[in-house]
Amino acid sequence: MTFEQKHLDQFYKIAGSYIDSLNHSDTLVRPKATSAELNEIFKFNIGSNLKEPNEIIDDLKKYLDFSTKTGHKNFYNQMFARSNLPALLGELTSVINNASAYTFEVAPVATLMELALIKKMSSLCGFENGGGQFVTGGSNANMVAMLCARNSLVKNSKELGLSNSKPLRVFVSEHSHYSFIKGVNVIGVGMDNLIRIPCDQLGKMKVELLEKEIIKSLAEDTIPFFVAGTSGTTVLNAFDPLEEIAAIANNYSLWFHVDGACGGSSLLSNKHKHLLDGVSLADSVTWDPHKMMSIPLICSVLLTKSSDALLKSNSSKHTEYLFHDDEEINIGESSLQCGRRADSLKLWTSWSYYGDAGYEKRIDRLFELAEHTRSYIEKSIVFDQTYVTSGITVCFQYIPDGITNADKINEFNRSLRVKMVDEGKTLINYSELDNNLFFRIAFLNPDISIDDVDETLQGLEMLGANLLKN
Amino acid sequence: MTFEQKHLDQFYKIAGSYIDSLNHSDTLVRPKATSAELNEIFKFNIGSNLKEPNEIIDDLKKYLDFSTKTGHKNFYNQMFARSNLPALLGELTSVINNASAYTFEVAPVATLMELALIKKMSSLCGFENGGGQFVTGGSNANMVAMLCARNSLVKNSKELGLSNSKPLRVFVSEHSHYSFIKGVNVIGVGMDNLIRIPCDQLGKMKVELLEKEIIKSLAEDTIPFFVAGTSGTTVLNAFDPLEEIAAIANNYSLWFHVDGACGGSSLLSNKHKHLLDGVSLADSVTWDPHKMMSIPLICSVLLTKSSDALLKSNSSKHTEYLFHDDEEINIGESSLQCGRRADSLKLWTSWSYYGDAGYEKRIDRLFELAEHTRSYIEKSIVFDQTYVTSGITVCFQYIPDGITNADKINEFNRSLRVKMVDEGKTLINYSELDNNLFFRIAFLNPDISIDDVDETLQGLEMLGANLLKN
Repeated sequence: MTFEQKHLDQFYKIAGSYIDSLNHSDTLVRPKATSAELNEIFKFNIGSNLKEPNEIIDDLKKYLDFSTKTGHKNFYNQMFARSNLPALLGELTSVINNASAYTFEVAPVATLMELALIKKMSSLCGFENGGGQFVTGGSNANMVAMLCARNSLVKNSKELGLSNSKPLRVFVSEHSHYSFIKGVNVIGVGMDNLIRIPCDQLGKMKVELLEKEIIKSLAEDTIPFFVAGTSGTTVLNAFDPLEEIAAIANNYSLWFHVDGACGGSSLLSNKHKHLLDGVSLADSVTWDPHKMMSIPLICSVLLTKSSDALLKSNSSKHTEYLFHDDEEINIGESSLQCGRRADSLKLWTSWSYYGDAGYEKRIDRLFELAEHTRSYIEKSIVFDQTYVTSGITVCFQYIPDGITNADKINEFNRSLRVKMVDEGKTLINYSELDNNLFFRIAFLNPDISIDDVDETLQGLEMLGANLLKN
Repeated sequence: MTFEQKHLDQFYKIAGSYIDSLNHSDTLVRPKATSAELNEIFKFNIGSNLKEPNEIIDDLKKYLDFSTKTGHKNFYNQMFARSNLPALLGELTSVINNASAYTFEVAPVATLMELALIKKMSSLCGFENGGGQFVTGGSNANMVAMLCARNSLVKNSKELGLSNSKPLRVFVSEHSHYSFIKGVNVIGVGMDNLIRIPCDQLGKMKVELLEKEIIKSLAEDTIPFFVAGTSGTTVLNAFDPLEEIAAIANNYSLWFHVDGACGGSSLLSNKHKHLLDGVSLADSVTWDPHKMMSIPLICSVLLTKSSDALLKSNSSKHTEYLFHDDEEINIGESSLQCGRRADSLKLWTSWSYYGDAGYEKRIDRLFELAEHTRSYIEKSIVFDQTYVTSGITVCFQYIPDGITNADKINEFNRSLRVKMVDEGKTLINYSELDNNLFFRIAFLNPDISIDDVDETLQGLEMLGANLLKN
């Protein structure tokens, strides 16, 4: 049987109900089901038994039913959350059109939107004639930034590889994202050549140690070529002192990268953009609009100070079957991808709807929600801030009355998190640092209310009290 | 103003009309508009003026209106075409759910679907206990395959990088995809260390030359470590002789990769799977279901013979904030991505709907459409096959009566293609090889009819005749 209008109408209804359900407290964020149970429900054997259209529609409903609801108002678990509606509509349109954003010929509008957004974002970074591109994720952006740096600073490495080179060194803070570790593996630098600089109590890179490590690397006859400051680390949401790092990068002729995958969006806020002071000195910037700008996954951008950095680093010969000698620009030439989803439309619709002013409010709101949470934690008799944060994450433990042993506190918080996941009403992640195990609540959805947050925290207090009773 | 139900209903209607329009001959495949004109229409200035919901909906309609219609029945331009409907619904669901397929906790169903699909596809390759993963594209799959090979065969390269290594060498056919060139740049091998082996008239690698080149590389004190056979090249859709390449890879202890980005799907057809004879000898296989299986972009898989090849090559330390010590599997650990779209659902819905048997018919149909086109070209008095193909692409020129000069024929075909694009009714790409410029029609949409193909070819004949008149 083939699909008919009634099946599509059914699908539209299911999609609508799903989106509505994300604001209801009685919708579980995470329906409990083990892989064994899901295997039973879905029967993942593929190819042998055909399904009718109505069965496919049923499967899609089941998929939504049993999926973790990342758009739920009580989802605080990852560094992304609910997609905003204009962005969601943009993404759905992009899927329906199915353009590959490599040539103007097959993706004319997406090409121009991408160029316009890159221009806008790069000017927010203070780049006068910047370039850049949508990439496949923040991890990819960081890797490509290191590749640009390597190809720019290590002579002929694009053509000859690294076998003739001395060992290369990359410098990041110890709180930086693991994508740098994966990235130095990929580009042939090697994981042992990633130097992770210690951070202060707030999670910011100790820049005096950066210089020491660079000098040490030079003494070891290696080539320091890349340093990244992180704007908004994953756990503490700390912002490295970019100006100081830039000065050192400049002194030692290193490529200076800013990983603003999370915090880059703070540039939209007059109140918070100072956190990225110095970003204009960067050679490249990672910025994921799918995080604080609430765009559906994936929406990641790598910006470069030099407009042709990506083309220089990534272009190759023998692409003429795809990239003809056209009058219009083919943005795929500077990309490592061949087929490329058009990730620009969703950001464009969203930005068109909210405008700079609306986005400023949304970004500020995320900080406010976190700030409110910090004061809630301060007042709470059971919660304790494990680390001082000032960004959009809050790190705290539940301290059971009378327990002072750190391991026992950790164990209790681990059990409490398990309980929370089991219950499924709300989802807050946990992290481990310096032998502390603590909740890390992340604010990426500006459309929730203070009441929503209070309800979540009260719920966690009650859950903890119940856990103590049993 | 906020979005209301009426806006969503409006959007649903627009999406439906768009999909319907793809089967109408009077819908242009490519509406003519230069970047200057599109800039005028869309006014890409971002952030300054807010738009109302109805304006956003209008923009989305305009986006569809002015986009190239890759799902149109007359779109033969790229190595992907129309998304099939169950896959499209799966993708829309995935977008609405917005899971990040890195942990079981936030993507339980997507995780299990990915594992089931990898198992299925890897068993189709003849891997008994294979592994693999959805990646960000065929180019990415080829790069990651080379990375796995490098990390597996070049001792400590993951930790130490390549500075202590002799130059490494990669071998592919001269008709292989450019992603190998970009990939050796990325992984630190260098573009000059990619050896492109000449092909025969049919576009297949001359395997005797492969062995010669390996011996030469050894004599030059470099390390050959990777060879790829292509199953379905981009222009001629040629299939390299995998068994012969495997034997040589085995003799010289090279990693043997199969780039089946396009042709991998032939494994679904009893009639055509012989084209990949020897694939079971591969260490890794690239396979893009977004090509011959008509899944929306991106749906790319890298399969590995060893189940833990990706984890070994790609894993890193300091990921514990994301990957906890869970009971369930976290597939993101073996990925180079952090945030990962759930690309499995769309393939799962599609495969559930068509089944193995239905997919076999769809794959066979693509070959039949190409075969029909070849016989049309043979009979045509104006068309001439420029290269003998036997896969899903056909390469031909329009030979104007009386013209024998090759450059003039090329020039005429270039003009004819420009004319076709200007007219916008159909879109067939062109390629250049050995100083020939020719049309390359690609069959990726099995739902078109023989009449559709004939109409397209007749249209091109008429367009050529008109061009000759003027």
